[in-house]
Amino acid sequence: MQKPSLPKGTRDFGPVQMARRNFILETIKDTFQLFGYQQIETPAMENLSTLTGKYGDEGDQLLFKILNSGDFLKKVDLNDLSEGAAATLPKVAEKGLRYDLTVPFARYVVMNRNELTFPFKRYQIQPVWRADRPQKGRYREFYQCDADVVGTDSLVCEAEIILMIRRVFAGLGIQDYKVKINNRKILTGIAEVIGESGKEGPLCVAIDKLDKIGWEKVKEELTDRGFAENAISKLSPLVSAANESSEPLSFLKSFLAASEIGMQGVRELEEVFEIMQSMGEDLSHVEPDMVLARGLSYYTGAIFEVKVNQVSIGSVSGGGRYDNLTGVFGLTGVSGVGFSFGVDRIYDVMEELNLFHEEDSQGTQLLLAYFDEKSFSYALKVLTQFRKAGVRSEIYPDQAKMKKQLDYASKKGIPYVGICGDEEIKSETIALKNLLTGNQESLPIYEVISRFTAVN
Amino acid sequence: MQKPSLPKGTRDFGPVQMARRNFILETIKDTFQLFGYQQIETPAMENLSTLTGKYGDEGDQLLFKILNSGDFLKKVDLNDLSEGAAATLPKVAEKGLRYDLTVPFARYVVMNRNELTFPFKRYQIQPVWRADRPQKGRYREFYQCDADVVGTDSLVCEAEIILMIRRVFAGLGIQDYKVKINNRKILTGIAEVIGESGKEGPLCVAIDKLDKIGWEKVKEELTDRGFAENAISKLSPLVSAANESSEPLSFLKSFLAASEIGMQGVRELEEVFEIMQSMGEDLSHVEPDMVLARGLSYYTGAIFEVKVNQVSIGSVSGGGRYDNLTGVFGLTGVSGVGFSFGVDRIYDVMEELNLFHEEDSQGTQLLLAYFDEKSFSYALKVLTQFRKAGVRSEIYPDQAKMKKQLDYASKKGIPYVGICGDEEIKSETIALKNLLTGNQESLPIYEVISRFTAVN
Repeated sequence: MQKPSLPKGTRDFGPVQMARRNFILETIKDTFQLFGYQQIETPAMENLSTLTGKYGDEGDQLLFKILNSGDFLKKVDLNDLSEGAAATLPKVAEKGLRYDLTVPFARYVVMNRNELTFPFKRYQIQPVWRADRPQKGRYREFYQCDADVVGTDSLVCEAEIILMIRRVFAGLGIQDYKVKINNRKILTGIAEVIGESGKEGPLCVAIDKLDKIGWEKVKEELTDRGFAENAISKLSPLVSAANESSEPLSFLKSFLAASEIGMQGVRELEEVFEIMQSMGEDLSHVEPDMVLARGLSYYTGAIFEVKVNQVSIGSVSGGGRYDNLTGVFGLTGVSGVGFSFGVDRIYDVMEELNLFHEEDSQGTQLLLAYFDEKSFSYALKVLTQFRKAGVRSEIYPDQAKMKKQLDYASKKGIPYVGICGDEEIKSETIALKNLLTGNQESLPIYEVISRFTAVN
Repeated sequence: MQKPSLPKGTRDFGPVQMARRNFILETIKDTFQLFGYQQIETPAMENLSTLTGKYGDEGDQLLFKILNSGDFLKKVDLNDLSEGAAATLPKVAEKGLRYDLTVPFARYVVMNRNELTFPFKRYQIQPVWRADRPQKGRYREFYQCDADVVGTDSLVCEAEIILMIRRVFAGLGIQDYKVKINNRKILTGIAEVIGESGKEGPLCVAIDKLDKIGWEKVKEELTDRGFAENAISKLSPLVSAANESSEPLSFLKSFLAASEIGMQGVRELEEVFEIMQSMGEDLSHVEPDMVLARGLSYYTGAIFEVKVNQVSIGSVSGGGRYDNLTGVFGLTGVSGVGFSFGVDRIYDVMEELNLFHEEDSQGTQLLLAYFDEKSFSYALKVLTQFRKAGVRSEIYPDQAKMKKQLDYASKKGIPYVGICGDEEIKSETIALKNLLTGNQESLPIYEVISRFTAVN
């Protein structure tokens, strides 16, 4: 008899984990809907032609491919074996598993462009698959949770992203975090004013390491990457200012004065903050970060990243504005801005900070327990009344000793047991036992119902 | 530039479809939770060793297989090409996509048997994949929505399944349907009393066609399948009784009197109904059907099927009791009972019966519209107040003509627009326009909020 196992890098989610994940996802969904985002879902499988070439060479390697159905060797001949896997692949596989939610979304927008109402605000919560080497905290199947608006340049969207992040974190009980924001145009401007136009890519890769390796090492790396000595020394005041991080915008206004695009980036940042102020919102948790650069090749405007302080996990959410999401599928001029909550990381953060509460679990609130056939019958009738009132309740289905019934409740995390015996039948009550405190009181059914529905 | 497309047999779900699907799924989840079921999720990919051989030869063919990562040809040699696809498969693929939720659940129970609390009541809502030939109403990716209890023989579970089905259908607004129930033991008993013990399989396949082809043709088929003439004529009264379907249980009690197992099946059915009566529930929608036989090889006790009347789609939900769910993974003695809601079919039924209401959509309730910079600023402030109160609301992000803003609301199905102009700024009101009726009234913000939150 085989002993079953899971493919490496994959996980089951049991009841406790699911309840916690649902709490996170419901909080996020609720916020997306409050802001007018609409949910879509796309298939797990996409044509390989849709996926390939969108994630770089490494990404192509990490795509899970689906073997063609039926005789998958049909088109393969002897030559292919010597040509190797890459050459043979197109003959045996036409489909692959979704690698992220962005490419399927772009495909969806292009295929439905005539039916959609723009600006189109969509959210999507689905698993993605990557054939990465599994390691702690990195899985081959994990959920992404994305919100994007496409078809508008309005910075109202950037402001709303910040507001949504803050609302989600408030709902989850995460208090100590920052929403870092930058703008690609600022990065372009920085490269310009130090005389290295167009090199914001390598510049940011190096500067990103400031926290870890310090300015001296970053300077070495910049030299290795071909930055002029003069350019590097021009960068010095920026690095000092970034470290202090007081009033970065006013620093940038003088630092970038000579760069038109750089100044435009600063103005865009300011405008986002002004919109928030018009909305009557403060700027708490918001932190301009002039060297934030995630996924630089992709973003053309705002860049976001959320970091929770005091925990081992870093970034839990990120995103930004892109000018040309759908260009690769032939539809140009669709500008958008989006971001993604890292559900697995948020889960780990909440566990580390001990923020999960069992009340959030949607688990059974009450188990009815009984001694014999007669009280079983009574309990069944009472059960119906509880359920009609919306109280999540159950009965131990087999005739069993009281201890076994109480054990079941306790192991399943059910907080209350309603004990039914002769006394209760006579008085139309139940003996309501709080399993946490051990307290027990005799109460009429309607009284118990009103307690539970009030708490609910 | 490539024109993107979807793999055949797969679908995108847009905002309207998702809202409707979510309404169905939330109704189901809510019911499962009310009855004490807990959610789990399993990975999309399972080892092929877990999946293969569980669904018959045809099922094995219909499994989607995942190509091994990296050099998938590594183990393949020249011989394999002549041996063919079946022989080569194990060398190029180790994993497959989930084909249903039952086998992954059995694997989960076996792998977690020491941590689980039995009886274990679980529900699971996830997509499954089958390489079936796509056709109308049949997809290669579709959701299953299963609830099972394992680790108990109690017929309370059967009664609760009927109650859950009725609660879900009431919540969805489906009124004209029947929950057909039978018991495998009754089928075994029927085969026994007509002198064809053990042949309940072919018996049921033939009798299942009674509605479609009539008794004369069914008799021919039974003859072809080797049933004795004598046996067939013994069946006649059962067929008449099944057609009349009044008092099937009392008919069965005399028809099956000679079969111990058959009589046990009848008693089990009666006990389920008695439990429902103890719960204070009537038997509305419930219909014993002595020839109901779905998935016979699998079920050992109760068999369920739900049919909605007056629609073109037949069965929308089904299930039953099985004695040995986990035996194939080496854990014996785990009896359970479960059933599955066919979400796609329920969707189609509700569409056919026109049961979807836009109020259920969780879509935006209100769009704020404005004329100029000044009223835009005002609208932003009002927007924050609405959202703080939990009203799903948005603002058209770009400065645009009033008509464009109203068009956006109307296309997106937003029922109300709150127009902000100079008058409204002065009086701290908005002009609330009902897009359906065209009615418009000037109202203070707090008044609008209280209307929306009351409706909610």
